[in-house]
Amino acid sequence: MQPYDSGETMHGWARDLFAVPRSLTGPGVRATLDYLAGLLPGLQRHAVASGTAAFDWTAPDEWTVREAYIETPGGERICRFADDPLHLMGYSHAVNAELDLADLQAHLYSRPDLPEAIPYVTSYYARNWGFCLKHSERKALEPGRYKVVIDADLQPGRLDYADLVLPGRTSREILISTYICHPSMANNELSGPVVAAALARWWAGAPRTHTARFVFVPETIGSIVYLSRHLEHLRRHLAAGFVLSCIGDERAYSMVQTARADTLADRAARLALASLSEAPVLYSYLHRGSDERQYASPGAGLPVVSLSRSKYGAYPEYHTSLDDLENVVTPDGLAGGFELARRAVSAVEANKVWRPVFPCEPQMGKRGLYGQISTGRLETSHANRMHFLAYCDGRDFIDVCTATGLSPSEGAAIADQLHAAELITATPDP
Amino acid sequence: MQPYDSGETMHGWARDLFAVPRSLTGPGVRATLDYLAGLLPGLQRHAVASGTAAFDWTAPDEWTVREAYIETPGGERICRFADDPLHLMGYSHAVNAELDLADLQAHLYSRPDLPEAIPYVTSYYARNWGFCLKHSERKALEPGRYKVVIDADLQPGRLDYADLVLPGRTSREILISTYICHPSMANNELSGPVVAAALARWWAGAPRTHTARFVFVPETIGSIVYLSRHLEHLRRHLAAGFVLSCIGDERAYSMVQTARADTLADRAARLALASLSEAPVLYSYLHRGSDERQYASPGAGLPVVSLSRSKYGAYPEYHTSLDDLENVVTPDGLAGGFELARRAVSAVEANKVWRPVFPCEPQMGKRGLYGQISTGRLETSHANRMHFLAYCDGRDFIDVCTATGLSPSEGAAIADQLHAAELITATPDP
Amino acid sequence: MQPYDSGETMHGWARDLFAVPRSLTGPGVRATLDYLAGLLPGLQRHAVASGTAAFDWTAPDEWTVREAYIETPGGERICRFADDPLHLMGYSHAVNAELDLADLQAHLYSRPDLPEAIPYVTSYYARNWGFCLKHSERKALEPGRYKVVIDADLQPGRLDYADLVLPGRTSREILISTYICHPSMANNELSGPVVAAALARWWAGAPRTHTARFVFVPETIGSIVYLSRHLEHLRRHLAAGFVLSCIGDERAYSMVQTARADTLADRAARLALASLSEAPVLYSYLHRGSDERQYASPGAGLPVVSLSRSKYGAYPEYHTSLDDLENVVTPDGLAGGFELARRAVSAVEANKVWRPVFPCEPQMGKRGLYGQISTGRLETSHANRMHFLAYCDGRDFIDVCTATGLSPSEGAAIADQLHAAELITATPDP
Repeated sequence: MQPYDSGETMHGWARDLFAVPRSLTGPGVRATLDYLAGLLPGLQRHAVASGTAAFDWTAPDEWTVREAYIETPGGERICRFADDPLHLMGYSHAVNAELDLADLQAHLYSRPDLPEAIPYVTSYYARNWGFCLKHSERKALEPGRYKVVIDADLQPGRLDYADLVLPGRTSREILISTYICHPSMANNELSGPVVAAALARWWAGAPRTHTARFVFVPETIGSIVYLSRHLEHLRRHLAAGFVLSCIGDERAYSMVQTARADTLADRAARLALASLSEAPVLYSYLHRGSDERQYASPGAGLPVVSLSRSKYGAYPEYHTSLDDLENVVTPDGLAGGFELARRAVSAVEANKVWRPVFPCEPQMGKRGLYGQISTGRLETSHANRMHFLAYCDGRDFIDVCTATGLSPSEGAAIADQLHAAELITATPDP
Repeated sequence: MQPYDSGETMHGWARDLFAVPRSLTGPGVRATLDYLAGLLPGLQRHAVASGTAAFDWTAPDEWTVREAYIETPGGERICRFADDPLHLMGYSHAVNAELDLADLQAHLYSRPDLPEAIPYVTSYYARNWGFCLKHSERKALEPGRYKVVIDADLQPGRLDYADLVLPGRTSREILISTYICHPSMANNELSGPVVAAALARWWAGAPRTHTARFVFVPETIGSIVYLSRHLEHLRRHLAAGFVLSCIGDERAYSMVQTARADTLADRAARLALASLSEAPVLYSYLHRGSDERQYASPGAGLPVVSLSRSKYGAYPEYHTSLDDLENVVTPDGLAGGFELARRAVSAVEANKVWRPVFPCEPQMGKRGLYGQISTGRLETSHANRMHFLAYCDGRDFIDVCTATGLSPSEGAAIADQLHAAELITATPDP
Repeated sequence: MQPYDSGETMHGWARDLFAVPRSLTGPGVRATLDYLAGLLPGLQRHAVASGTAAFDWTAPDEWTVREAYIETPGGERICRFADDPLHLMGYSHAVNAELDLADLQAHLYSRPDLPEAIPYVTSYYARNWGFCLKHSERKALEPGRYKVVIDADLQPGRLDYADLVLPGRTSREILISTYICHPSMANNELSGPVVAAALARWWAGAPRTHTARFVFVPETIGSIVYLSRHLEHLRRHLAAGFVLSCIGDERAYSMVQTARADTLADRAARLALASLSEAPVLYSYLHRGSDERQYASPGAGLPVVSLSRSKYGAYPEYHTSLDDLENVVTPDGLAGGFELARRAVSAVEANKVWRPVFPCEPQMGKRGLYGQISTGRLETSHANRMHFLAYCDGRDFIDVCTATGLSPSEGAAIADQLHAAELITATPDP
C-alpha cells in the first residue's frame, strides 16, 4: 500500500504556513500556493484579473498590506499586523489618521465571551477598515488620541488559485476542494490544504480508476470563479466531490450533506464516517458554510459534500486566534482527517455494481473461504464475505458496505478476493 | 394586507346561529344558509329533491319539527324541543302517545359519564323516535304514565346546500368545505361555517391565483350529493381541499391526513400546522370522520384533508350540549382556526417550483441582502433567504418551506423578495 | 373451516421421528421421508446421485453409519451412536484405532458453557472424524489408551429429497420449504417438517387460489439441488415462499426478511407476525441462516423469507442435545408455529387489489352493515369495514390490512362481505 504522509508531517507543513498573511488575494495567497507547489509536483497555478465576472460576482481588487498598527496615547504600537495578521480586518483600506478612543471604538472588534481571543473579521465587499484585538486589551485602552496606520493597497490585481489533475483510468472525476484564504488559523484554514496535499501525494502514487482533481481556492469567490470556468466539465464528468474544511482537530468526525442527501458523495462520506466513528455528525445542508455552498447549490447541482472533524461554528475557538496548532489542530487530528478523506475517495474509487456469478451461495469451503467443521457459528471474516455476496443484489458497492457494516477497505478487500475467485463480476465502469 | 374578521366577530356570528334548529334538511338549514348569504355576497343556493340519487345514496325526506316534548305524570313538560333542539333525536317521526316510564326508557338517551350533558343522537336512515336528556334528570323520572308529543313532518321535500366560487387567475381550484347540519353545538358545528365565512370574506378581497370554492353542505349526504354533481369537475381542477370541522377551541391544532398522506393538501396543511404549533396532531386517515371521508375516499380520490383545532371525538364535550360557545369555542379559538385555514390556503396559493437564476450563490451583499462585515455568524433573515435559495433544487415552495423551517408567509415574503431581485424564476403556473 | 392437526398431533409426529439418525444423506433421511409420505398422500420422492453438479456444488457421497463408539481404558463404551446420533460428528469417515487420550482430544467436541449438552458438529465437505460429548463427561476421561470404532461408509450413493405440489386455481405458486437433515434435535429440525406437514394436510383440503409447493430437503445442498432443477420455473411462477425453521418453541415469533425486505413474502410474513405478537422479531437478511440463504440469494432472487419462533442461534439450546421435545418444543409452540405459517400463506392467498365500486362511502346502513342510531361512536366491526374500504386506494390486500391493523383472516372476512355486497371489485388474479 502506498505510504501516507504522517500527521506529524502534515502538522509541520501547517506550522510552516501559519504566519503567512493570507486573504482572498494578494502575496499571502501566492506564498501559500508556492509552498503547496513544493509539495505537489504538477500543481497548476491560475489567476483571473480583478474585475473578472463569474456568474453574479466579480473578482475583487487585490489587497496588499505593508504595515498596520495602532499607536496609543502613550506611544505604544498595538494591534500590529506584523505580530498577527488577524489584528487587521480583512480588506481594510489604507488609513493614516488620529482619533479619539471613542471614535476608534467603532472600528475595533473583540469578543467579550472570549476575552483572550483575537477575532477574525473581514469586509471584502464593502469599503471599511478595522482592527481586532483581545477583549481584555480593549478594556484596558485609555482615553486619548490614537494614531491609526494602515499602509495597504486595495487595487486591481489578480485572484490566484491552483489545481492538480491526476488522470485516472476513466474520465469520471473525484473532486477535492479546499481554501487558502484565511490568515493565521489552524482548523479553519490550514487543516484543509495540508490534508488535501497529503491526499494528493498519496493518490499520485496509487492506482486511480477516477481522475482526481484537487482545487485550492480562496473560499466562496474562488470556488465561484473556478465553477465559472469548469461547471460544464464538472457536470459532465464529476462522480463525487469533497470539500475539506476544519479537518484537523480530534473532537468529532462530521460532514455536511447535500440538500437531498442522496448523491454518491453523500453515501461515500457517510460510509467513511461510519467506519471511523460510532457517532459521526451528519449535518444537513442547512448547516452548509464552506464551498459546498457553491458546488452543491441548486444552480450548480454537483454531487459535493463537505468533510470535517469539528466543523466551522461547532467549536469554540472558531474564527479567532485560539484556533491554533497547539490546542486545536494536532498531528492525530490531521491524521484522522486524512483518513476520513482517504476512505471517502476510496469508497468512490471502489464503487461499482458487483453481481454474483452463481445462483445460490457458492461453495466457499472448497476454496478455503469457509470453516470446514460446522458448529453453528461462523467466523467474522467468513460471515463478512457471505454478507457481501448476499447483498450484491443490484445495489452498488457503497450500499453493500453500508448494509453489511463493512468499512470501504474491508469491503474492497472482500470484493478483490471474491473477484479473484471468480465469484462476482462487475458491471462495466461508469 | 386584506383585513380579517376578528375572532370576536366570528364568535358573534356563531351566537346568532346557535339556537337555529339545524338537521340534515328542513327550515333550520335554510335559516342558516340565509344568515351565511348575508355574510357572503354571491353565495349560491342549491337544493335537490328528496329521493334524488347520489351514487349509492338518495337524498332523505325533509324533516320539519313544530313542537316536541314529554309530559310527566305530574304534568310537567320536559325535553322541550323549543328549549333545546338537542332534546329531540334527529329525524324522529311524529308521535302522540302515552307510555309507562319503562316503555319510555327505550326511547331515552343520556350519558352516565357526563350526567349534566344532553347527548346528540340521530337516526337519519332508520324510522325511529327518541328524546335526549341529562342523565341526572333521567334518573329523577318517577314511575307512571308519560305523554309523548312529537309534532313533526318527515316527508318528501328537499336537501339544501350552498356554494361560493371566487374565480382566480387560473382554473385550478382550492376547495373549502364545511357542514351546516348540527343543532345547538359550537365546535362540532358552528366553528366550521363561521371560519369558512371569514375565510371567504378575506379571500374575496385578496388576489387569487387559484379559484376558491366554498361549500356549505349537510355532512355526509350533503358532500355525497355535491360530489355526485361536481366530481368530474373537481377531478380535473382541484389542487387541494380542506374540510373545516371542530376548528374553534383553544386546545389543539390538528388535521386528518389522506390515506397516503402525500397530497398537496396534506403537505400544505402540515406546513400550516408546523407554523402554528410545536406539537400539532397529525391524524391518519384511520381517524377520519367528517367529509374528508367522501372527498378523499379511494373512489373519489381527491386531495382533501380536514383541519381542526380539537377534532371530533378528541374533546370531552363532543356531541353533547356541553359543546358550547362559553367553555369550548372562544374568539381566540376561532381566530386560531381561521389562521390555520388561511395559512393552508396561502401555502397552496404560493406553491410553485422556484429555480435560482445563477449557478452558485448570488452576491447578496451588493443587493443589501447580506451582512457586509463577516464575523462568522449570519443574521436569521439573511440565513433564511440563503436557505430558501439553497433548497430551490426542483422541490416546490411548500417543500422548500418545510425543509427550511419557514412558515408559508415567511417563505412567500422571501420568494417575493428574491423574485423582485431577479434571483429566482418560477416554472409556469400549473 | 378445514380442521387443523393439533399441536399434540404434531408433537407426536416429532416424537416418532426424533431418534431417526438423519444427516445430509443416507438411510435416516429416507426413513424420515417414508414417515412424511405416510402423512402426505402424493408426496413425490426424488434423488440425485452423489457427484451430481448443482451450480457451484456437487451432491456429496452418501453416509451410512452402522456403529460408532469410544472404548475407554477401563473398557466402557461411551459416545455410542446407538444411544444418540449426536455423539458422532456428521460425515465422520470409518476409523478403527487406538489412541492416547491426548491424541483423542483433538477429535472430541464439547461445550464448556453448556457442560450437560452434547453439541452438534459436522464436517460434510472435509474428510474428518470426531465425537461429541457432554463437557462434564469429557473432563472425567482418564489418561490411557482409547479404542475408537466408527463403522461407517462414505461412498457414492444418492441425495434424497421430496416435494408435494397441490395445484391451485392459478399457476402462481406459494412455496413452503423445510429441511430433514439434522439428527435428534427438536426445534432446529423436527419443528419444520411437522409444521410443514400439518400445513400441507390442512391446505390439501382447503380451496387454493395459488398452487402450493412443499419441499423437504437436506439444508443448503438440498435447496441448492432443488433450485438447480426448478429455478427457472420458480422465477416464472413463485408469488412468495416461506422457509420453516425452528418453529416449535413458545418463546418468540420471528422471521428473516429478504435483503430489501419488500417482497410479497416479506409483507405477508410481517402481517402474519403482527397478528400473532405484539413484539415480533424482524431479522434482517444479515441474520439469515437456513435455506432462505439460497432461495433469496441475489443470484436466485426469489421472494422467500424464513418463519421461526425462536430462530437458530437465538435460543441457548441451539445445536445441542438440549434442543428437545420436552423443554424446548411443545405442542403449544408447534400450534403457534403452524398458525404463523398458515396466516402467512393465507395472506398471500387473499392478496389482490380491491377497488371500491362507488365514489364516496357506500350507504352501509341500508345493508345492515352500520349502526342505525348515531351517537358519535362506531362499533369496531363497522369501523373495520369502513377502514378496509377507505384504504382500497390501489394498494393490495396485505397493505390494506397492514395499514388498518387487521389480521389476514379479519381482512379476508371483510373482503368477502364487501364483495358479496357488491361494494368492491377485484382486479384480475395475477
